[in-house]
Amino acid sequence: MTFKLAFIGFGVVGQGLAEILAEKRERLREKYDFEFEVVAISDMKLGSVYDPEGLDLDEILKKVEEGDSLSDHPDAENGWDSLETIEKADADTIIEVTFTDMETGGPALDHVKKALKMGKNVVSTNKGPVAQEVKGLLDLADENDVHYKFEGTVLSGTPAINLAMKNLAGCEIEEIKGIVNGTTNYILTKMEDGMGYEEALQKAQDLGYAEADPTGDVEGVDAQGKTLILSNTVMGADMDLEDVDREGITGLTSQDIKEAEKEGKRWKLIAHAEKDGGEVKAKVSPEKLSKDHPLAGVMGPTNAITYSTDHLNDVTIIGPGAGKEETGYSLLVDLLAINEEV
Amino acid sequence: MTFKLAFIGFGVVGQGLAEILAEKRERLREKYDFEFEVVAISDMKLGSVYDPEGLDLDEILKKVEEGDSLSDHPDAENGWDSLETIEKADADTIIEVTFTDMETGGPALDHVKKALKMGKNVVSTNKGPVAQEVKGLLDLADENDVHYKFEGTVLSGTPAINLAMKNLAGCEIEEIKGIVNGTTNYILTKMEDGMGYEEALQKAQDLGYAEADPTGDVEGVDAQGKTLILSNTVMGADMDLEDVDREGITGLTSQDIKEAEKEGKRWKLIAHAEKDGGEVKAKVSPEKLSKDHPLAGVMGPTNAITYSTDHLNDVTIIGPGAGKEETGYSLLVDLLAINEEV
Repeated sequence: MTFKLAFIGFGVVGQGLAEILAEKRERLREKYDFEFEVVAISDMKLGSVYDPEGLDLDEILKKVEEGDSLSDHPDAENGWDSLETIEKADADTIIEVTFTDMETGGPALDHVKKALKMGKNVVSTNKGPVAQEVKGLLDLADENDVHYKFEGTVLSGTPAINLAMKNLAGCEIEEIKGIVNGTTNYILTKMEDGMGYEEALQKAQDLGYAEADPTGDVEGVDAQGKTLILSNTVMGADMDLEDVDREGITGLTSQDIKEAEKEGKRWKLIAHAEKDGGEVKAKVSPEKLSKDHPLAGVMGPTNAITYSTDHLNDVTIIGPGAGKEETGYSLLVDLLAINEEV
Repeated sequence: MTFKLAFIGFGVVGQGLAEILAEKRERLREKYDFEFEVVAISDMKLGSVYDPEGLDLDEILKKVEEGDSLSDHPDAENGWDSLETIEKADADTIIEVTFTDMETGGPALDHVKKALKMGKNVVSTNKGPVAQEVKGLLDLADENDVHYKFEGTVLSGTPAINLAMKNLAGCEIEEIKGIVNGTTNYILTKMEDGMGYEEALQKAQDLGYAEADPTGDVEGVDAQGKTLILSNTVMGADMDLEDVDREGITGLTSQDIKEAEKEGKRWKLIAHAEKDGGEVKAKVSPEKLSKDHPLAGVMGPTNAITYSTDHLNDVTIIGPGAGKEETGYSLLVDLLAINEEV
């Protein structure tokens, strides 16, 4: 089949995917028998555009780069919003990459639901809907005989979720420990190099790792959402955000870092989920890891997860946790997985 | 479907899988909709047994533990050998776990070919056939509309091959560096702790990591075979064993180890494959890694591979590289993957 794709949202991540698709069209056809057209894009800021025959991605990307509205495009459909695009565009697969609202799921939750109900596949890097009701959404996908995939919600394109769900199938995953937020790991790395917290944060902001308001990262909110996702997907729990205890890194001082080093240890902000009888317990908090722990050597903005299993003991994956190309790529691997299954 | 499994070979790895299957029958049915009967076992030393209705695995494992021949079993079929078992047993899936012959592929190559030609799936931890002619065998599987899977040939059940082929689909893997032999990594770890080579080797032998004749490990032969497999599967090369340059760890002295430490580095036996233009170049040799390389912290018998890719840069997987349960499990994950696809 030729996939007919519609982008809902076309910010950094959406553009990241679009660039890969534009560059690799031939390669994807040859190697994976994956053929596609992008028929629609709808973005709150950039406007919307639709062509059932397929848009010219290079042209679209150029327009965006030059700061033009997509709605000026000859194929613009007089400003379809997200829901109209999902409803009216002749697309079989929705790429949901709008902004994340962890608390309610936000408009993204409606997008995903509408698409699945209409029998359209959804691939998404949006943590909101997964955190809010992943089980319901996966059931909805099943009922409508379509797919809902979200590898990029944790560790961007680094295969955290597929690793656990597919490659470790048949293992019981008894414990998860992860470094799932690159900003805080970068700050802790710099503090170990001798910077104070404020200076390290500033540096993270200068490099674009941390936002102007860094609360979501440094208070552990981002990590809390990812811990919830891992708990509810990999461990099959049915938890809410507030069930995941949370403590960020703002309480850690340079003194703490130095003392840990003297003990041969290292502070990391750890996402932690553990099976305790029939229940899953989850939290985010700074942990002092001994330097021979597989996560202790993960430095800078790099992310990593250790799955503790019955048959293999510890299996650790290390890779990037963010980035335009890295997160954009996660949507491609989801699309290729759907292509294998249809 | 209910899988009808036949074990060709029933040594440590086969028994490892059988133990997991016996223990997890209910769980596998519930969680993965995977149902099976083991209908035949044929082993050079233990004899052979066949029951089209399914053998009692607990009973078989007890017999083996007590040192009894399987051929004494009431369902014994007067000593079918491997090829007869593949031909005559009413099995749809062959578990090929006989001894490895890297040079020729050995009898295992005939087993795999015969099974695939007869339209039976093959799951195997046997490096011989994969190293000899993986492409031909995968084509043969395709032609006969069955599967040939071999996750356990590299890093035992740690998902090295599936990670590269499935989870990193759409990425170009440009370079592979791995610690793929646990024995040599254990010896190097102990040498760093201050032991001499001979003492470290003795300790590895005492613990069962190294065999009485350790040549295959310490001269890099085992790693060479795995490097060939990674090159020919993950990188799509078409190389022979002699195309992989090989140097083991026997040339490393305690002095070398100490000097590296002074430079903040660490010797590892590295499996290395790299795309160079249209060609793949592969070798096994000791490399001095800087301590911030993701493989540098992998100590003891643990294995790891770093895949360098276009979209994600480096992705590293760390986990066990050997063991009865770990390698036995690799066959289960292969079976579950086939179950998903049929």
